[in-house]
Amino acid sequence: VPIRYLQLAIICFVLLIDYNYSAAKVDSITVNQIVKTTLQHQTGYQLLAELCALGYRLSGSESSLRAINWAKNKLQTIGCDTVWLQSVQVPHWERGDTEDAQIVNSSKFENKRLNIASLGGSIGTADAGITGKILEVNSFENLLKLKSQAQDKIIFFNQAFNQGFLNTFQAYGVAVKQRTQGAIAAAKVGAIGSIVRSVTSKYDNVPHVGMMSYEEGIKQIPSASIGVIDADFLSKALIEDPNLKVTIKLSCRNLRDTESFNVIGEIRGVEFPKQVILVGGHFDAWDKGDGAHDDGAGCIQAMEVLHLFRYLNIQPKHTIRCVLFIDEEQKQTGAKTYANYALSTKENHLAAIESDRGAFSPRGFTIDSDSSTIEHIQDWLPFLKSAGIDWVRKGSSGADVSKIKTAKARIGYVPDDQRYFDFHHSENDVFASINAREMELGTAAMAILTYLLDKYGLNEK
Amino acid sequence: VPIRYLQLAIICFVLLIDYNYSAAKVDSITVNQIVKTTLQHQTGYQLLAELCALGYRLSGSESSLRAINWAKNKLQTIGCDTVWLQSVQVPHWERGDTEDAQIVNSSKFENKRLNIASLGGSIGTADAGITGKILEVNSFENLLKLKSQAQDKIIFFNQAFNQGFLNTFQAYGVAVKQRTQGAIAAAKVGAIGSIVRSVTSKYDNVPHVGMMSYEEGIKQIPSASIGVIDADFLSKALIEDPNLKVTIKLSCRNLRDTESFNVIGEIRGVEFPKQVILVGGHFDAWDKGDGAHDDGAGCIQAMEVLHLFRYLNIQPKHTIRCVLFIDEEQKQTGAKTYANYALSTKENHLAAIESDRGAFSPRGFTIDSDSSTIEHIQDWLPFLKSAGIDWVRKGSSGADVSKIKTAKARIGYVPDDQRYFDFHHSENDVFASINAREMELGTAAMAILTYLLDKYGLNEK
Repeated sequence: VPIRYLQLAIICFVLLIDYNYSAAKVDSITVNQIVKTTLQHQTGYQLLAELCALGYRLSGSESSLRAINWAKNKLQTIGCDTVWLQSVQVPHWERGDTEDAQIVNSSKFENKRLNIASLGGSIGTADAGITGKILEVNSFENLLKLKSQAQDKIIFFNQAFNQGFLNTFQAYGVAVKQRTQGAIAAAKVGAIGSIVRSVTSKYDNVPHVGMMSYEEGIKQIPSASIGVIDADFLSKALIEDPNLKVTIKLSCRNLRDTESFNVIGEIRGVEFPKQVILVGGHFDAWDKGDGAHDDGAGCIQAMEVLHLFRYLNIQPKHTIRCVLFIDEEQKQTGAKTYANYALSTKENHLAAIESDRGAFSPRGFTIDSDSSTIEHIQDWLPFLKSAGIDWVRKGSSGADVSKIKTAKARIGYVPDDQRYFDFHHSENDVFASINAREMELGTAAMAILTYLLDKYGLNEK
Repeated sequence: VPIRYLQLAIICFVLLIDYNYSAAKVDSITVNQIVKTTLQHQTGYQLLAELCALGYRLSGSESSLRAINWAKNKLQTIGCDTVWLQSVQVPHWERGDTEDAQIVNSSKFENKRLNIASLGGSIGTADAGITGKILEVNSFENLLKLKSQAQDKIIFFNQAFNQGFLNTFQAYGVAVKQRTQGAIAAAKVGAIGSIVRSVTSKYDNVPHVGMMSYEEGIKQIPSASIGVIDADFLSKALIEDPNLKVTIKLSCRNLRDTESFNVIGEIRGVEFPKQVILVGGHFDAWDKGDGAHDDGAGCIQAMEVLHLFRYLNIQPKHTIRCVLFIDEEQKQTGAKTYANYALSTKENHLAAIESDRGAFSPRGFTIDSDSSTIEHIQDWLPFLKSAGIDWVRKGSSGADVSKIKTAKARIGYVPDDQRYFDFHHSENDVFASINAREMELGTAAMAILTYLLDKYGLNEK
């Protein structure tokens, strides 16, 4: 009898090895199919071309609603079981036709135009514009020191993007504060407006826009970004003529909040339909350029993950849901609406993956979860490498999915970041700046991770 | 007495820890200085702009000699102890003014021009050109099957670049054979010329050129590449009119071998001046575009490694030598000349690092050496990560340094490869396609590796 047990144990062991071996083989075949399909068909790249041709996707704009409708139809076409629009009240800011800056009252630089663009959320000026002397500062501390000179001036925040960081998001994180908080700090010291050096890694004269804020109880003053070359010009001009004045005219305005939508499509899971694996990006974009990298590509990658499940006939156990969040750029009302919805339903979110760092070559995934879950996902690295992923680490996910606190893992897809801020929030961010292979590998990386999350879950190790 | 030994041992141990700690700290400071300096100053990027403005660098061309002189002067300016030109007899092929293809004898497509470019090494045609029917094939096997139809035709090699590979160099390796060997195979079956689909990952109509070969005893026939869009057009046109003829006129020609030079500059080592750490790229480039990625950037990165040693006041123990090899693209005569020189001197090559895969974000280093040497270098990964290097693996080095068989380690710098063949050997490969940060990080990665190789050598583990 003991011998028989031993025999049985050996047989079980051999079968187990065989089972694991076969599972690994099936996974390897599926993973290779995912990579080959994305790279060879480049369907996502073509979808992005279509999306970028539909016009800008600023929250609340008419063209954004057209694009939302387009996305809804596409999700149906690729074979989702359910597609729906989730109503979201979004801020409604419009740029209008006028954004103009000109040096006046200077014999040397008279009439010189400066390349500027209204910042998101900024109030406009009266038709005559605002005219004032310029006070250049390179930090908020610097502004406080020069406080006594600030009255009735236009504050020129000229802190440069620090190229010394390996990670460009770090450099962005430091410099962007003058854009988001500049108008508040300027108004506090009596200024009438603010101009902010574009937060970009590129040396050109294209203004890079983005959100700015006001503070309750502090006067709202107009705020615009200025191209890097003109920022350098203005800084030098101020040395030669410190009394030069600039007239700024902005026609932007804040309208009443309006209805928009998160676009949601899903393939229902056959075993655990109430357990959701979410893939997403944000659908809104600034109105300069096409929002191709930020975040058209991320949205299409999320849609394509579902498309791949259908195309490759992978029947998921869990529900695979694509969420295209509206209004990431301004107040994250889309993410908040979805997060509230997630709390209120009886569904659980197993994982939520966000792509919002541009359509560049895959580098890694950052995971916001407990360490054993992260280790569990790290075990899949050999498969993820097939799409160019070199690492899986603890880290933050993204502005939208980070709000889904109930998810067991919130995950950020991390492509190479060296070029992102060349394009970011500017007219450089057009479809032509997308490389098809880089974008498709992002889709593949997310699809592989989704496939493994669905197949193996996050509970066993 | 034993107690004293114990005390001594403990003190030694503590000192050793302290020494290692301090060494690691110094290394970490130096590594950070290297990364910050390259990213903030972008000196290499500016040098590349200068180089690209000097004209093409086809081996044997006048403009290549001007550029060689420029590089020699720059190496002197950055503070090399010795700069010299190593004489190399190089092939001398010229494109000339004419490269033209036109459909004739077809009512439907008469006079339609096709975008072609002579392949390097090809003979030209007589002024009247060659005219023939087209035989399209997608492989050498396919050509052999259709052998009986090949007489007096122009063979159209139309095998596509296989986008399905993660690594684009693999796709290139498969498809490029029709470019290098096509004219031989075509001549063997009686064809009068060959047209080769551009070996590129990009869907556009720019011909991508490169070397082609002839074989002793086989008739030499003219060979040109064709833009991908026109290749697809021609393939469809042949379905509608299989009898259409094409006239090809090429003015290219092979001249007698001529003198050119490897450009060599070095900083002499203070401890081991006869032990060399080589960094290099190839200085010649095809005459379409600027040769910015291939391999202007690699040359400048190698030069900048020496520049950084001077700028940061790092006095190397070993001799750090920059070699800009001439004629990688055609017959590697520069690499062969240098490898022979390396055999003949009393110097040893500790390591030789090549950069010849474009100015894209760093991914890794591939090492051609024994496994203990590779492990030794892998221990430095924490430092290399500061420049975006994610891995160090066994692998081949590069076309030039692979010839230096006496080097203990031949090393290839591996940037991201997704975009390389969009630019490769075509007019797309211009300075404007270079991203400063990506290029500078390549310099930093090579400089960090050189610094560690110099400081710690390759003998201890």
